[in-house]
Amino acid sequence: MNTIEKLQTDYNQFLTLNSFQGSPNNLYNPMNYIMSLGGKRVRPLLSMIGNQLSNGNIQNGIYVGHVMEVFHNFSLVHDDIMDKADTRRGKPTVHKKWDEPTAILSGDNMLIKAYELLINYTGPNKDAILKTFTTTAAEVCEGQQNDMDFEQRVDVDIESYLHMIQNKTAVLLGCSIKCGALSANCNEEISNELYDFAINIGMAFQLMDDYLDTFGNSDNTGKIKGGDILQGKKTWLFLNSQHIDKQKHQELFSQENSATKVDIIVSHWQEIELDKQCLQLIKEYNQKAHSNLERIEKSGFDIQILIELLNYLSERKN
Amino acid sequence: MNTIEKLQTDYNQFLTLNSFQGSPNNLYNPMNYIMSLGGKRVRPLLSMIGNQLSNGNIQNGIYVGHVMEVFHNFSLVHDDIMDKADTRRGKPTVHKKWDEPTAILSGDNMLIKAYELLINYTGPNKDAILKTFTTTAAEVCEGQQNDMDFEQRVDVDIESYLHMIQNKTAVLLGCSIKCGALSANCNEEISNELYDFAINIGMAFQLMDDYLDTFGNSDNTGKIKGGDILQGKKTWLFLNSQHIDKQKHQELFSQENSATKVDIIVSHWQEIELDKQCLQLIKEYNQKAHSNLERIEKSGFDIQILIELLNYLSERKN
Repeated sequence: MNTIEKLQTDYNQFLTLNSFQGSPNNLYNPMNYIMSLGGKRVRPLLSMIGNQLSNGNIQNGIYVGHVMEVFHNFSLVHDDIMDKADTRRGKPTVHKKWDEPTAILSGDNMLIKAYELLINYTGPNKDAILKTFTTTAAEVCEGQQNDMDFEQRVDVDIESYLHMIQNKTAVLLGCSIKCGALSANCNEEISNELYDFAINIGMAFQLMDDYLDTFGNSDNTGKIKGGDILQGKKTWLFLNSQHIDKQKHQELFSQENSATKVDIIVSHWQEIELDKQCLQLIKEYNQKAHSNLERIEKSGFDIQILIELLNYLSERKN
Repeated sequence: MNTIEKLQTDYNQFLTLNSFQGSPNNLYNPMNYIMSLGGKRVRPLLSMIGNQLSNGNIQNGIYVGHVMEVFHNFSLVHDDIMDKADTRRGKPTVHKKWDEPTAILSGDNMLIKAYELLINYTGPNKDAILKTFTTTAAEVCEGQQNDMDFEQRVDVDIESYLHMIQNKTAVLLGCSIKCGALSANCNEEISNELYDFAINIGMAFQLMDDYLDTFGNSDNTGKIKGGDILQGKKTWLFLNSQHIDKQKHQELFSQENSATKVDIIVSHWQEIELDKQCLQLIKEYNQKAHSNLERIEKSGFDIQILIELLNYLSERKN
């Protein structure tokens, strides 16, 4: 078992032993249900890696990582209501399995329990972790609201879009690795460098998601090719296409939904080299992440585990 | 201006100067909107009274009271979605004025901002206040879920009902006065006595609400007489009526809704002296509150302001 798998296993063991306890069942069962749906546990992984990099007490890294996972799952429960999503990871979402009021309330209680965990945290840098977490939590809400607002707007600029995806997904990754490092008494400079590193890989990851949805091999991604196009989703590709030639863009998207529509748009975007530009932007974020790594290494840290993380995260089918 | 009015004015001034700042507007405007709808500001009042009783720095009392008011308003925003309420204090609820996703998200951000305020609190007993607040916040969620569960159940016992209303409304009053006292470095014994005092007046207040809805003079309450009866709401009166004679109770409630139905049920409940029993229970809670006051006075505190509070809260039309 490599280090990444070992850390994931350790977290899953911790999770099994630390399910939420309380009554009524209709409040606490949904909380444990969403936590049990699995996933890669990227946020606890980042916290544990941040902790291990500074040779901290791993128990503190797991504990802080668990807070991040609880917060992440709180946001999933509420986002699924807002997005009217019926399933998550092949299982019914909380508001489908129970109902919307129960999903709102058990989400609320997960946010409170994330804070309760942090308030009972006994490791180093409690105050700094509480502050970083709280700033991040508000940014995630701001990102989600921006995302909803953008769906109603026609004038979204690329910079605002990148700021939105940074808040909606990347900052919690940054927060996870930074708080993990703080839980190991890592200094502020390196903690912030790790934060930036995770932001950069988060941005690259999110943009790659958009890229693969449109240009990926659907046999590998398991998704319908061009799902974002058919939904008219305001991705980086959509917004740039709109920005480059608004009239042509509107013409392309005014077609009725069909496989042909997807093919026509994909071809056009390849023609104007949007695919290459997107890959170029992803490359830039990855290069920034590598610059972060170099500075961390120069400060005397063994970055092997961060390299492993990068390899693990890049192992996605395309 | 008496002391109570003065404290309310002070809080409202603080609130005006401390509105939420941030973007996007669709996230922050709803937060300021709900906070601006007014009300008696009972929770900040309790915190400020708790603080003043121990001659604390009133700024700390206002600050802690503001946290309680933010939390209270967060719970109103989410409860209004769950209850499908269209108006609050004569104005549209947040999910009506904006939409449900925005109401969920701005509620979430209010909960985060309540914590942010506490994390930036610089007065005495920060840790104890954070813990008391967090325990209370989870209890409020548990109470709200129990309330929703009870509406679907036919077997709710009186003790569970009282436990539910304690969690749903009274504990936040207890938390408000206790944290206000802690913000003035009040000792644990008196802080807890104040907590119990507020719980007892909260319970009396809630039960009086139920009593007045059924037995009050609707000209004075401004509500439709017997609104709870027409909704089949599981109040203390309803549950006791069911408990005393289930068959008779079902018979009474199986009638079609009408003013006559209300009159018949009211008469029957008066006949079996449910009204007197309810008033007796309210009296018992008030007596408990007075016992709390006596113990506080015996410990050398000037309880004048608490007496004023009791008078203020009992000034309700019946």
